[in-house]
Amino acid sequence: MSTVPSPEPAPVPAQVPAQGLASRLDELRGEYAALQARGLRLDLTRGKPSAEQLDLSEALLALPGEGVHTSENGTDTRNYGGLAGLPELRGIFAELLGVPTEQLLAQGNASLTLMYDTVVQALLFGVPGSERPWSREEQITFVCPVPGYDRHFAVCEELGIRMVTVPMTSDGPDAEAVAELVATDPSIKGMWVVPTYGNPDGSVVSEAVARRLVSMPTAAPDFRIFWDNAYAVHHLTAHEAKSADAIALAEEAGHPDRVLMYASTSKITFAGSGVAFFASSPANVAWFTKHLGIRSIGPDKINHLRHAMFFGDAEGVRAHMRRHREILAPKFAAVTGILADRLGDLGVATWTEPAGGYFVSVDVTAGTASRVVQLAKEAGIALTPAGATFPYGRDPQDRNIRLAPTMPPLDEVRVAMDGVATCILLAAAEAAAG
Amino acid sequence: MSTVPSPEPAPVPAQVPAQGLASRLDELRGEYAALQARGLRLDLTRGKPSAEQLDLSEALLALPGEGVHTSENGTDTRNYGGLAGLPELRGIFAELLGVPTEQLLAQGNASLTLMYDTVVQALLFGVPGSERPWSREEQITFVCPVPGYDRHFAVCEELGIRMVTVPMTSDGPDAEAVAELVATDPSIKGMWVVPTYGNPDGSVVSEAVARRLVSMPTAAPDFRIFWDNAYAVHHLTAHEAKSADAIALAEEAGHPDRVLMYASTSKITFAGSGVAFFASSPANVAWFTKHLGIRSIGPDKINHLRHAMFFGDAEGVRAHMRRHREILAPKFAAVTGILADRLGDLGVATWTEPAGGYFVSVDVTAGTASRVVQLAKEAGIALTPAGATFPYGRDPQDRNIRLAPTMPPLDEVRVAMDGVATCILLAAAEAAAG
Repeated sequence: MSTVPSPEPAPVPAQVPAQGLASRLDELRGEYAALQARGLRLDLTRGKPSAEQLDLSEALLALPGEGVHTSENGTDTRNYGGLAGLPELRGIFAELLGVPTEQLLAQGNASLTLMYDTVVQALLFGVPGSERPWSREEQITFVCPVPGYDRHFAVCEELGIRMVTVPMTSDGPDAEAVAELVATDPSIKGMWVVPTYGNPDGSVVSEAVARRLVSMPTAAPDFRIFWDNAYAVHHLTAHEAKSADAIALAEEAGHPDRVLMYASTSKITFAGSGVAFFASSPANVAWFTKHLGIRSIGPDKINHLRHAMFFGDAEGVRAHMRRHREILAPKFAAVTGILADRLGDLGVATWTEPAGGYFVSVDVTAGTASRVVQLAKEAGIALTPAGATFPYGRDPQDRNIRLAPTMPPLDEVRVAMDGVATCILLAAAEAAAG
Repeated sequence: MSTVPSPEPAPVPAQVPAQGLASRLDELRGEYAALQARGLRLDLTRGKPSAEQLDLSEALLALPGEGVHTSENGTDTRNYGGLAGLPELRGIFAELLGVPTEQLLAQGNASLTLMYDTVVQALLFGVPGSERPWSREEQITFVCPVPGYDRHFAVCEELGIRMVTVPMTSDGPDAEAVAELVATDPSIKGMWVVPTYGNPDGSVVSEAVARRLVSMPTAAPDFRIFWDNAYAVHHLTAHEAKSADAIALAEEAGHPDRVLMYASTSKITFAGSGVAFFASSPANVAWFTKHLGIRSIGPDKINHLRHAMFFGDAEGVRAHMRRHREILAPKFAAVTGILADRLGDLGVATWTEPAGGYFVSVDVTAGTASRVVQLAKEAGIALTPAGATFPYGRDPQDRNIRLAPTMPPLDEVRVAMDGVATCILLAAAEAAAG
């Protein structure tokens, strides 16, 4: 396992059994007792931006400014209307996401809400190509690449959608595994993908994988890929990876309506006060907009104007993201550096070295992830619950832990990660000791 | 019909047949031709605030201001979280709406969205007290007082909910008619009410009507009143009417979960960029929040902070609404004054004289509302489509027209209303001439 950040996430090798760790059990227990004695209160649970990152967008708080409320096309943004969102902001993000502006909607403050609402619309009305509303099917199933994003799985669980898993690879979901499932099971109506810097594994969907996913025959005529491009511009290195252009590839493949893309500025400007985007084929956009128009007279156009003024253009977004990178890259280097220093040659864990996004995915000794999280908690270090990256919160191997190092200051990340390494070692030693 | 604004909407008397109008047909045709020749482009269709009203909130456009992002309880409003909304803004509107702060949620930019989402949650999951999700019932029915709000009816139509109508009275919906329907029909799960300055009739729900609605036995154990308090603080006179406190009355009556209240600042600050509110019993709030938490990490708290700073407190909202009143009262006086001057003694129409809200409801000669709207359109005056205030857009008597005088400048309201009066007269004369 190299400690040098690379643009590709590190592959996850087969678990190497810990050697000699059992004999270090007493030493590690002592180390852990010393960790507990420090009385830490540290948190690596959620992918939240840090205050330092939020400060980058402070100018937004005084925008658009008194007397400034007219859009480029002359609309008074203070009044009702404009269901598709402010054209100038749509233009900026259409360029960044590689879709035509007219196929991109700018909406409210959360792409999670747009995803949830899309699934609900599909349940209530069906999507273009559906024979009936999804809720009238005996069973609806989504393919969930694992490890994945817990909130995607929570949407499925809430809405009674069965989940089947496929493994992630360094190029995105295992497309052959997906193709095999969807070919014969007509209950499979959807799948989740985080194409750029996947949550939590950091993988970027390659063009080959994307082509396979948009081309594969599906038993369901109305199969949809929920393409959650949450980290499209969230680079950690000078190499700015770009996931495959799935909407265009789907059209090319003769399945123009297969891909639904989502993105937001939650981790670009302010988390919870940003702008979320939906992009897809003309038919899907028309379908989504038709139902949207019953529940909304229009989105918060002033927040759209505020963001358009703040960014200026797509290059403005890119430049802004480079300032995020300056803050984040050292934190990620600390995480992977400390893991390498403390665990590098012991065979107790493997981890990703992401080139972007918000997470490091760690696979610890099988059967010990829950124990690691518990040990960390009892030492004052909050980690995402073990299993969170799997449907229903159940990691069958109890192995994966998602680390979110963005929010704490760099020195706290270092302290926390040193503690996490101790917990991983102690849990492995306990397991080896039997 | 008096022309003096009164706090009570004028009752709608039985239609008096037009007398002698047929003989004025040629004169009215000439008058209408002259109207058409003016080439007007006026719009009385939607309840939108005017630019002058929006200017009252211009200071919001520079709030909260750089460096200002911390709530009273120390939360960084720029980051994720706070599903219930910013406490200080919830406190201000809890006082105005007469509900406990902990039973009021501050959310996104539209109460319409909150209403739609409530109905969807009920369909997918049922509400507290439901035997099953509403979507698993054979049929769901809502009681719709008419004339009413077209977007309420559109939500029902979109979601496959049958609508039955009851008449409005000057004290709100005809409670006896509602009680009779709900007593025996278990498919009736809900009803719409705009309790303060009803849309479009301006009525205010009295305590007696509210008590009846919250006390009446219902065949459905999970019947809900969607209490859309859109105009709670939107007074047009010095008498600030207050609709009955339905949530407290429902609790008193032993049906604590019957009332779901909605409100927003759309017509207080900026339409589409305001804050929407949901209030109800603790059980309903917990139910709504549980599902909300799957689709949202939290609302736009910066917009909440912006609004809390702008208002300061509940009295700040009241003072702000008095400035709206100064702009709006003359427009409403122009509408009712011109109707009285032109039509007062001819028996061709009756109309409300609202003490608040956004609309004047006119009942023209039965069978002529569509014709009036068509004549107005052909003279360059856009009116809300005839029938819009009834489910499915069908007014069985083709009689009701909703006038929305808030958006155009006062001089345009005068010109438009003079034209509308001509159209009402001409349509009545045509009908009388047979």
